[in-house]
Amino acid sequence: MNTADLRARRPAPSSIARLTMAEGLRALDAGTLTCEAWAQACLERIALRNPDVRAWVHVAGEQSLARARALDKSGRTRFFDGVPLGIKDTIDTADMPTELGDPEIFPGRQPGADAPVVARARALGYNILGKNTVSRHAIMLAGPCRNPHDLSRSPAASSAGSGAAVADFMTPISVGTQTAGSILRPASFCGAVGFKPTLDLIPYVGIRTYSRPLDVIGPLCRSVEDAQLFMKGFVGDPRYTAQAPDAMPRLGVWKPRDWPQADARTQAIFEENLASLALAGARLVPLSMPGSYEEIGDIQDVIMAYDLAREYDDLRRHHADRCDPELLAYLELGRSYSDEDYARALDAADRCRRQFYDIARDLDALVMPATLGEATEISSTGSSVFIRAWSLLHNPSISLPVARGDHGLPIAIQLVGFRNEDPALLAWARKVEQVLGNRAHDT
Amino acid sequence: MNTADLRARRPAPSSIARLTMAEGLRALDAGTLTCEAWAQACLERIALRNPDVRAWVHVAGEQSLARARALDKSGRTRFFDGVPLGIKDTIDTADMPTELGDPEIFPGRQPGADAPVVARARALGYNILGKNTVSRHAIMLAGPCRNPHDLSRSPAASSAGSGAAVADFMTPISVGTQTAGSILRPASFCGAVGFKPTLDLIPYVGIRTYSRPLDVIGPLCRSVEDAQLFMKGFVGDPRYTAQAPDAMPRLGVWKPRDWPQADARTQAIFEENLASLALAGARLVPLSMPGSYEEIGDIQDVIMAYDLAREYDDLRRHHADRCDPELLAYLELGRSYSDEDYARALDAADRCRRQFYDIARDLDALVMPATLGEATEISSTGSSVFIRAWSLLHNPSISLPVARGDHGLPIAIQLVGFRNEDPALLAWARKVEQVLGNRAHDT
Repeated sequence: MNTADLRARRPAPSSIARLTMAEGLRALDAGTLTCEAWAQACLERIALRNPDVRAWVHVAGEQSLARARALDKSGRTRFFDGVPLGIKDTIDTADMPTELGDPEIFPGRQPGADAPVVARARALGYNILGKNTVSRHAIMLAGPCRNPHDLSRSPAASSAGSGAAVADFMTPISVGTQTAGSILRPASFCGAVGFKPTLDLIPYVGIRTYSRPLDVIGPLCRSVEDAQLFMKGFVGDPRYTAQAPDAMPRLGVWKPRDWPQADARTQAIFEENLASLALAGARLVPLSMPGSYEEIGDIQDVIMAYDLAREYDDLRRHHADRCDPELLAYLELGRSYSDEDYARALDAADRCRRQFYDIARDLDALVMPATLGEATEISSTGSSVFIRAWSLLHNPSISLPVARGDHGLPIAIQLVGFRNEDPALLAWARKVEQVLGNRAHDT
Repeated sequence: MNTADLRARRPAPSSIARLTMAEGLRALDAGTLTCEAWAQACLERIALRNPDVRAWVHVAGEQSLARARALDKSGRTRFFDGVPLGIKDTIDTADMPTELGDPEIFPGRQPGADAPVVARARALGYNILGKNTVSRHAIMLAGPCRNPHDLSRSPAASSAGSGAAVADFMTPISVGTQTAGSILRPASFCGAVGFKPTLDLIPYVGIRTYSRPLDVIGPLCRSVEDAQLFMKGFVGDPRYTAQAPDAMPRLGVWKPRDWPQADARTQAIFEENLASLALAGARLVPLSMPGSYEEIGDIQDVIMAYDLAREYDDLRRHHADRCDPELLAYLELGRSYSDEDYARALDAADRCRRQFYDIARDLDALVMPATLGEATEISSTGSSVFIRAWSLLHNPSISLPVARGDHGLPIAIQLVGFRNEDPALLAWARKVEQVLGNRAHDT
């Protein structure tokens, strides 16, 4: 079966399901859309597609429809009233199960309270449709979600269901989390926009913990504008203006050590992107990074493995029979690192973090590919070599699906900003999106 | 004995011990000071005063002198080379004991590695003199440190030794931590400058943990400039320019619910400060805060008590006989809060955090008193009602000692900035310091 056949088999979404969050909000305001119709369109898409894509482990169909109808009746008062939202199933919800990506170990687990990000989402007016599938053991292991563009391909990990649900028009937006590449990689493989904010802008509490110096909450959606609105809602900072600057950015171009691993098409698309940006007036500055930056992936892995071994220690001790051999091997790796290894890694990370200010002194953002190529076979979840540096260094990063690869699957570009200057990065990403386009709307 | 007698008994420091970090660095650069002479002056002051003040639990005299001599011989190459530094004894040091404020429970505890902030301090060139005393059980309980201005008065908690050592000229700067008021309160009571950065700007790892959503590392020193230099070194962000703006700030004036508890002299000094700032051209805007802000202290306490009960659970279970009844009562309080209480508190904090942007929309900073009055009797450690809101909300805050109270002890003013805009707050604090003066240099 060739890819044209596979794509032909992906049914087109309804015009309502296709709306981005911002578009839907404008339609609600204009009276051309109701909350019920929006929720209904998403639920219909879920009913049609979820048996194949497996992007949701729990769907609160009746409840979300009832909430939408009540809103239509009472009238919307809050900005996000009626926006359909998915929640990664590692995030606690008081009214829905939260199985943490481990349904065999925590079957039917029901938290006593919402995680603060969920409570906040409800208070902002979001209409939570259900819980999005997490990869096996909530780490980089494959399954059970599938890539909506090609069911034989991987949606990546671990916010797999969030990326697949958004890219397949089952919801305009989903709340994911990232520790290495768990937002940007699923967004890139599935063809969504993925945004990882600076550490701790949104409190990471009531969520399965991997590594406290790395774990971050962020949105998967279909436009930069939606990421801006999401952040403005959750953080409150008015600098998240949903606009693009008039000027074009000064972009540092970094091709890391692993650049040659990227496939030829990804490399060619990246060069084309750079040419388009230069033509549009962006200043491009090739960067030669300090040697310490070439070790970032290894540093990140020491910290993540060391912390994960401690966070997952109960699993290892009490549920080893239900754990993947790959998980157990990774936990052993984490246990093999000494306190000194960990301290050294944290110190090296801190050095890189400070060096960034020198590297990017005269720049607005860095630009890089997001992944080595399009989505891998479903038995793998791909690589996060280009993404995880920014989990370690806490810089905000965003991926934009800008093209299609040899198999017709999405290929993304990544932009990286200064730590704690998330509003500026999103504004520049908006500008880059205008120049390069955004293929998250392809059907 | 009256306070004049007590102050008369405080011997004057040498002119070298009196230097701020910035002054010492300028003297080193000019060749009018050696690293050895600087370390020697601090160590002499420690030898003279520590038996009374008890600000250090470990002094690495020989080692720090040897490092200073080696630097004088080899020549300084790093910006902070030769700067004497104290480290709060809850922060791990590989070459010195770290008893965590619990010497009876962890006698002679020797960590295997430096906390990242210590490794970083060494790499920046700081010359670590030793470990600063922590209050009992590293929380708000009194002892064993004393206030250098009056040994019968409290140095506050928990970075007590850091505040006392800096204010008594035993070191120009010390690394402290804050969860409720543990940097700004000792700084205010002892007469130092205390700065609490936004959460996670400096990684809080390898340090006794109280509550991860609250714990922050920051400096106690004797000038705003030193706080600026400290942050620039540890964070790397070039926006920490050691300068004051030309303009005067727009300051929001907040008198919280507990304002009437402040003593008459503190209230009068605060009003005088406002008058001086207005006269110098600052725009003052009285704030009426949302009702949620009056509950902040209670919210902070739920989170801190809940988390502390979990972090200190081993102590409670295995060392109850060595624990203060007050600690055990506080741990029971923390255990009494449910997961729902905790989640509700986090959610309320998040709401306040977002409201701040509306409250302070047209302002540069907020201004408040730092404490209810001057240092209390030594059996208490005072109150953090005006300080702990900003631990909860993650906004940067700084205290400046601007006057003396009825007993001749320091009284401080507090400035509060926007989350993640620490460089701007410090620049405005520099301006306010120019107008109001800084009594940290009083001898």
